[in-house]
Amino acid sequence: MATARDDNDGSSGLREACGVFACVAAGAWPTHLDIAHVIYLGLVGLQHRGQESAGIVTSDGECFRSHRGMGLVNQVFTEETLQVKLKGNLGVGHTRYSTAGGSEIGNCQPFVVHTAHGLLAVAHNGELINGGALRRQILARGVGLSSSSDSELITQMLAWPPPGGEPDGADWAARITHLMRQTPCAYSLVIMHGSALYAARDPLGNRPLCIGRLPGDDDGDEGWVVSSESCPFQSIGARYVRDVEPGEIVRVCARGVTTAATVARPPAATPALCIFEYVYFARADSLLAGQMVHTVRQRCGRQLALESPADVDVVAAVPESATAAALGFAAACGAPYVEVLTKNRYVGRSFIQPSTRARARAVATKFGALTDNLAGRRVALVDDSIVRGTTIAPIVRLLRDAGAAAVHIRVASPPVRHPCYMGINIPTTHELIANRVESGRLAAHLGADSVAYLSVGGLLAAVSGREDAADGYCTACLTGHYPAKLEW
Amino acid sequence: MATARDDNDGSSGLREACGVFACVAAGAWPTHLDIAHVIYLGLVGLQHRGQESAGIVTSDGECFRSHRGMGLVNQVFTEETLQVKLKGNLGVGHTRYSTAGGSEIGNCQPFVVHTAHGLLAVAHNGELINGGALRRQILARGVGLSSSSDSELITQMLAWPPPGGEPDGADWAARITHLMRQTPCAYSLVIMHGSALYAARDPLGNRPLCIGRLPGDDDGDEGWVVSSESCPFQSIGARYVRDVEPGEIVRVCARGVTTAATVARPPAATPALCIFEYVYFARADSLLAGQMVHTVRQRCGRQLALESPADVDVVAAVPESATAAALGFAAACGAPYVEVLTKNRYVGRSFIQPSTRARARAVATKFGALTDNLAGRRVALVDDSIVRGTTIAPIVRLLRDAGAAAVHIRVASPPVRHPCYMGINIPTTHELIANRVESGRLAAHLGADSVAYLSVGGLLAAVSGREDAADGYCTACLTGHYPAKLEW
Amino acid sequence: MATARDDNDGSSGLREACGVFACVAAGAWPTHLDIAHVIYLGLVGLQHRGQESAGIVTSDGECFRSHRGMGLVNQVFTEETLQVKLKGNLGVGHTRYSTAGGSEIGNCQPFVVHTAHGLLAVAHNGELINGGALRRQILARGVGLSSSSDSELITQMLAWPPPGGEPDGADWAARITHLMRQTPCAYSLVIMHGSALYAARDPLGNRPLCIGRLPGDDDGDEGWVVSSESCPFQSIGARYVRDVEPGEIVRVCARGVTTAATVARPPAATPALCIFEYVYFARADSLLAGQMVHTVRQRCGRQLALESPADVDVVAAVPESATAAALGFAAACGAPYVEVLTKNRYVGRSFIQPSTRARARAVATKFGALTDNLAGRRVALVDDSIVRGTTIAPIVRLLRDAGAAAVHIRVASPPVRHPCYMGINIPTTHELIANRVESGRLAAHLGADSVAYLSVGGLLAAVSGREDAADGYCTACLTGHYPAKLEW
Amino acid sequence: MATARDDNDGSSGLREACGVFACVAAGAWPTHLDIAHVIYLGLVGLQHRGQESAGIVTSDGECFRSHRGMGLVNQVFTEETLQVKLKGNLGVGHTRYSTAGGSEIGNCQPFVVHTAHGLLAVAHNGELINGGALRRQILARGVGLSSSSDSELITQMLAWPPPGGEPDGADWAARITHLMRQTPCAYSLVIMHGSALYAARDPLGNRPLCIGRLPGDDDGDEGWVVSSESCPFQSIGARYVRDVEPGEIVRVCARGVTTAATVARPPAATPALCIFEYVYFARADSLLAGQMVHTVRQRCGRQLALESPADVDVVAAVPESATAAALGFAAACGAPYVEVLTKNRYVGRSFIQPSTRARARAVATKFGALTDNLAGRRVALVDDSIVRGTTIAPIVRLLRDAGAAAVHIRVASPPVRHPCYMGINIPTTHELIANRVESGRLAAHLGADSVAYLSVGGLLAAVSGREDAADGYCTACLTGHYPAKLEW
Repeated sequence: MATARDDNDGSSGLREACGVFACVAAGAWPTHLDIAHVIYLGLVGLQHRGQESAGIVTSDGECFRSHRGMGLVNQVFTEETLQVKLKGNLGVGHTRYSTAGGSEIGNCQPFVVHTAHGLLAVAHNGELINGGALRRQILARGVGLSSSSDSELITQMLAWPPPGGEPDGADWAARITHLMRQTPCAYSLVIMHGSALYAARDPLGNRPLCIGRLPGDDDGDEGWVVSSESCPFQSIGARYVRDVEPGEIVRVCARGVTTAATVARPPAATPALCIFEYVYFARADSLLAGQMVHTVRQRCGRQLALESPADVDVVAAVPESATAAALGFAAACGAPYVEVLTKNRYVGRSFIQPSTRARARAVATKFGALTDNLAGRRVALVDDSIVRGTTIAPIVRLLRDAGAAAVHIRVASPPVRHPCYMGINIPTTHELIANRVESGRLAAHLGADSVAYLSVGGLLAAVSGREDAADGYCTACLTGHYPAKLEW
Repeated sequence: MATARDDNDGSSGLREACGVFACVAAGAWPTHLDIAHVIYLGLVGLQHRGQESAGIVTSDGECFRSHRGMGLVNQVFTEETLQVKLKGNLGVGHTRYSTAGGSEIGNCQPFVVHTAHGLLAVAHNGELINGGALRRQILARGVGLSSSSDSELITQMLAWPPPGGEPDGADWAARITHLMRQTPCAYSLVIMHGSALYAARDPLGNRPLCIGRLPGDDDGDEGWVVSSESCPFQSIGARYVRDVEPGEIVRVCARGVTTAATVARPPAATPALCIFEYVYFARADSLLAGQMVHTVRQRCGRQLALESPADVDVVAAVPESATAAALGFAAACGAPYVEVLTKNRYVGRSFIQPSTRARARAVATKFGALTDNLAGRRVALVDDSIVRGTTIAPIVRLLRDAGAAAVHIRVASPPVRHPCYMGINIPTTHELIANRVESGRLAAHLGADSVAYLSVGGLLAAVSGREDAADGYCTACLTGHYPAKLEW
Repeated sequence: MATARDDNDGSSGLREACGVFACVAAGAWPTHLDIAHVIYLGLVGLQHRGQESAGIVTSDGECFRSHRGMGLVNQVFTEETLQVKLKGNLGVGHTRYSTAGGSEIGNCQPFVVHTAHGLLAVAHNGELINGGALRRQILARGVGLSSSSDSELITQMLAWPPPGGEPDGADWAARITHLMRQTPCAYSLVIMHGSALYAARDPLGNRPLCIGRLPGDDDGDEGWVVSSESCPFQSIGARYVRDVEPGEIVRVCARGVTTAATVARPPAATPALCIFEYVYFARADSLLAGQMVHTVRQRCGRQLALESPADVDVVAAVPESATAAALGFAAACGAPYVEVLTKNRYVGRSFIQPSTRARARAVATKFGALTDNLAGRRVALVDDSIVRGTTIAPIVRLLRDAGAAAVHIRVASPPVRHPCYMGINIPTTHELIANRVESGRLAAHLGADSVAYLSVGGLLAAVSGREDAADGYCTACLTGHYPAKLEW
Repeated sequence: MATARDDNDGSSGLREACGVFACVAAGAWPTHLDIAHVIYLGLVGLQHRGQESAGIVTSDGECFRSHRGMGLVNQVFTEETLQVKLKGNLGVGHTRYSTAGGSEIGNCQPFVVHTAHGLLAVAHNGELINGGALRRQILARGVGLSSSSDSELITQMLAWPPPGGEPDGADWAARITHLMRQTPCAYSLVIMHGSALYAARDPLGNRPLCIGRLPGDDDGDEGWVVSSESCPFQSIGARYVRDVEPGEIVRVCARGVTTAATVARPPAATPALCIFEYVYFARADSLLAGQMVHTVRQRCGRQLALESPADVDVVAAVPESATAAALGFAAACGAPYVEVLTKNRYVGRSFIQPSTRARARAVATKFGALTDNLAGRRVALVDDSIVRGTTIAPIVRLLRDAGAAAVHIRVASPPVRHPCYMGINIPTTHELIANRVESGRLAAHLGADSVAYLSVGGLLAAVSGREDAADGYCTACLTGHYPAKLEW
């Protein structure tokens, strides 16, 4: 998975599905807080979670202002858009990587929907595990749907009166609670109505969501933010407060943050934070459940060295996301960490490789071998994950051509074998190398001297920081144990 | 209104709201008929009805293929899109001029909507006279609406089961009938479902819609088309068959054209074809209710000359839409028709007029005076309509500067005084020159020697071709008599 | 040639080569005159002479500011570019239709060139009749040329010291005189150096160029303009002063307009204004040699009716450039002028005609027949010119399909038979219909009942306004008599 | 200089000036070698040397085909352009970072120039040290120049006949020799004429240039390449042969590579390869004068640790270009290498920072602190260079905010103090932090506990790999000793 996030490529690996960010200013409007700028910077910090489109909707408590577009956050928004168009004292933002729904401007979030009780803006990350059943139910009511996206299911479910119905149809916490009871995972949601914001995390806690506060000049608060990850907080001067709990519905308004409701897990279900957030999706400087992602990745590398040591002269990483694991591996195995590959950062997703010549050497267009560090040396090459295995084999060949005496592949996560129904795009089952190539033949297949993956138990131990493996994580793509009944 | 359609401008006048076009191939799929090309050419022929966006949805009876975009028909579609993407044996197309709903890609038609009984594609022209009430009713059901457009009201009303409901919820003629009973005007609709097409015209017949047939190589039919106007028929080799009748729902499938249902007018309402289709909106070579628009316009000019003759040396038109009326006027009054203005066709809507210098002479940027035809002559300057009167005054000044001895303005339609609630964008009431300037002072206000409008009776006589005025036309913007109760 | 200028197409006819416009403010800098706006509006008025690219270079007497781009004048310049970037008290502008040189940004004019005596900006219209010989001469000196354009020949010839050389190498009138002695035609030039502007017309006067003045608030002048045609003068408030004479070099600076030099015609050459400026290229409201173009075109129509009358019921024009001639024809022949074709202005150069269906009826996509004016009538259809004859035949068919009893084609200019070496793109000789089809068979070839062209003598008589034909015009493309030795 | 190459930014540091690449196929045309693809991949590998524009010109020995455009190599070329348009058996390519000449399409290289002896295509990297004098000389001859670029000086000097002149004016090696005698540095040139390519490096060897060969299927050669750096060779399957020597003119044709001429250094001048190629410009996997750049950078880090050790807990790099030096530093000082900053790769040159909030924390938008690796630790932070010092101070603050107990800055190159006249954009003298802040106050100024630079002697020792410093490098920006007389 060396190539996915780094080069905005994803052609050979897993893909994330979206980041959400929201901000509410303290006090009465107009406040000094430049809401649109804060959300813009928040989305820039979540850009790694989706590069297809971006959008922001702001509100002054009555009127919504919206701007959405295809492309990077920085391409979608201009200074003028932020300063002139997107006024308000609260707002929600979204950056999208398409999973279901296709790549069209109409799928850009946040969605704005008119309801009998006023306008809503909705942004979400994830996928409804029982989306098919919910869809049939909504259509059967006589509602027309304009897309095949889960987002529209969410907005129509919110618009529909909850069963108890009145006295107060506009009780949004009740409507969100009703929605969450119908679908246990996987989503993080931010919903704006009037001058209040609701942030909710699915009852299983599969998708991350956390809360930060913006300190004011005096001791008070200038505002609050909600974000898929904590990594953008430094750039806006926010402080990490806590994660939104699984099943929790948080209400944020000008007076502060409160828990509006909590939806319990379905009986048979277990807490299930996606473990690949640690392995791959989240940015290294984010805190997830209180742990820094970079530190977890170093521990994965160390655990891997304990499980599958290698007798090598040097340890190296497939640049750039595997560096933390490689440093952990090197520290544990005693061989020095070196660089063996340089990366051409201009070779990305849209790179054309027009001729046979180019395709045969595509990996050499993206990576250059640092021969002085390779010649005659035995190398442990650490990658964070191997999904389809299409990139790693030519890299091994490149290292051998540059003189490596041996190449031992060490993968800081277990093999991916099963589909994800919770919003992560995984190649189809037969494309996964762990399903295509028998483990005993994998080293030969990849041209390596040996290949070893981290064990599931080892990964859980590294994530928890304890020797015994932790509970509470979704490992479905590794184990086939899904956290909730499909089509629940 | 000299400037509106001609230069794709509309900044100073009325604006049309959309053209619809549909085509169904005879016989089983795949047919020889190149559906997408036919619809493309149809939309090009309806381009004068809307230049903001265009879209086509085709179907092979099961699968829908859709392509929509902002801009002219010719900018939205490429050869590849038509030939490769938009396969099928029936399809609907739309070209849009925004009225309600704003200028966004999300408002491009045709809309595609998922219902409990399958996919629908819907394109319409017009505006629902009781849109506000229908909207409140739909929201109250618990349906969320993603826009403020009438199109979404139509699709949600079609998706909603009709009151009688089952046994056959998928009876689309019944659903369309139900829709039409709830709103008497103003719309032409084309709806595609499965392998059938439904074309409907509002019970008052306010918006035009007609049927053509494509003759096959032998005596049979190759297919059928439905169009807002007949003008594109020549370009696709179609023959005009008849208008869709007010309130009629026509069903078109591979076996032919049938009347599926007819919805009666509400009790108090009268037939009400928008009379401005003749005056201004429709293309000169279209047949409306069996009459060629150009001929009606000539008759308007002749009638105007009878009502308000002018003692002049020459008769001229404000280019280019008023030429037919000017020729009619000239023939009736005996003075020769000449050109007095040349037009710079590169000066359109987006033309920047950066300085005071430019704004002061904006009209001279768009029009050049042909001084040889003006010097020392008394001119009757015929325009098809005057709405805001902002263009005609500087034109009069231009003609005087070029030496005209007298300028008599003759307007081949009555003064516009009232708002339209049936889909035509009319400037707000206080912008209408007929409301701003007392008729006795109008000539002075415009700098002309005299000003005369065609009378309402004269217009109706010209439209009907008889001396006594005809019934069956909506003249609400001229008379304030609306064809249906507002917020019905 | 009905289609060329009207729809920005030119696919079937002649093409013009460029417009030049320049402006100098009176008095010391900074003046009140908004130079860039004046030139911008001037170029908009010359847009019919070239739509490929546009550029403006302004000067404050020391520093040049330049902005050029592909596309229409209105697309190339923004308000900000005009107001902020293009400051100065004099400037030159250009709008281009590519002939030699290809369609690239590098060919956009005005050119700016560094010389030993400072910066020059040069814009020109036309083509050097002995360009090949001049090119070889410049290369032989050891100068590298970056393009195959005549513009670069002009700038390198101006940079090169004239033979007499010093004492004053910076005498630009002398350098321009030297240039003009080396090449007799065909060009109009504007050259900016320091705070002075030079405007020159080739010794044969093949290309037009005229002078206007901008009156100030008091009795004085606010500035002066130089333009390919006079038509933009109204839009900037300028008054036509006179044409630049053949061979004249005019110097314009803050103190006024003076004749800097006059270059005599080569011995054997005759004055030779391109007669197609009257027939086709110039805008109808321009004055050329003191005559309004529209009036000349009316006279062409009248002369044509005298030479080749037609026994018809109605006279009509191929829209839109032939209207003036048709009105002249109708007046002379006594039959009424009517419209028989409506034009779809959205069908232009880039229009795709994807299928056989479309190509077969391409003319019906562009033109709609007004059947009421055609049914059972004999029509004289006037066009301003027929070059390749590819458009007129399908138009005749369209009129017959619409019911015309007879169609007599009348062309208000003589047949084009010979290539132009003076800057006008003419289809290759064998594409010209006059060379392809014998005159006796032309009517049959075009499907018409008769075809008649205006005679050369008749054209010259119409242009001169006298019965005997005038001298002083280039008719090479009609007669094969070139005004100067080729490769002179 | 952490930010320059990495993020395509350069807003705070040095900037490179261009990469050149050329390829000639062995044997007669048409060959199997896909010339355009090879050059395309070569330019992609040189993309770090210039991201403003790119161009390729190919030749089949007679006809040139050219394609140039603004933007990255991958944006300028499409598969179709490479396969259909750019045919040939030899070609030259260029990727540009503007120094002199401004950012315009007209400055894109390669330049194509028509001369008396045929077409030339010219691409170069560098700047003529005596460009001003050469320019005046060319203008004085009477040649007009269309730009202020050195490239045009080169093409006009090549077009001008050399003094000896005939018998053979087309002797290009003689013309290039003559050019090189007039200007000693700094440039690498590739020139294409007919079916031959000339590659030349300035007599002082300031700019790099090397030769590779493409092995054929059998033992023979398929072709040869010339490149600014060797890093693209792996991606095209080429093998590094040797550097072009200072002053050498290499001729490459279908029969192979020969030295056509060698131009001696001017008397007082010394060999002078730009030492910043090792420090910063070249890609880590390139070989310069036979040494791998990454290895030299590691040695710089090691040498720095010996000169200026630091008592720290961890060693870290400013990502990403300083990693090699940091690893060298860590190995020499004994403290472990860790990551302390993560980088947001989506924050680049065009990033908007709309508000005061954003600007105050701009560095936190680009970098995230990995707090677990910082808390309570003393850090040696290694950067490859500090030019203006505007980025490093906020990074230090970021590390302290994240808990660092001490921050010691170590810079793996000496302070930049003097301007470059050889083609590298260096901030003006008073912007250079080494000139603005006294060295004793620098740590305080930057908020660090200590700051130390590598010495000039240490850098030369690291570059040479010997303890005593090497000759042959240009250190003018560090020492003020220029390799050639300015305005020579």
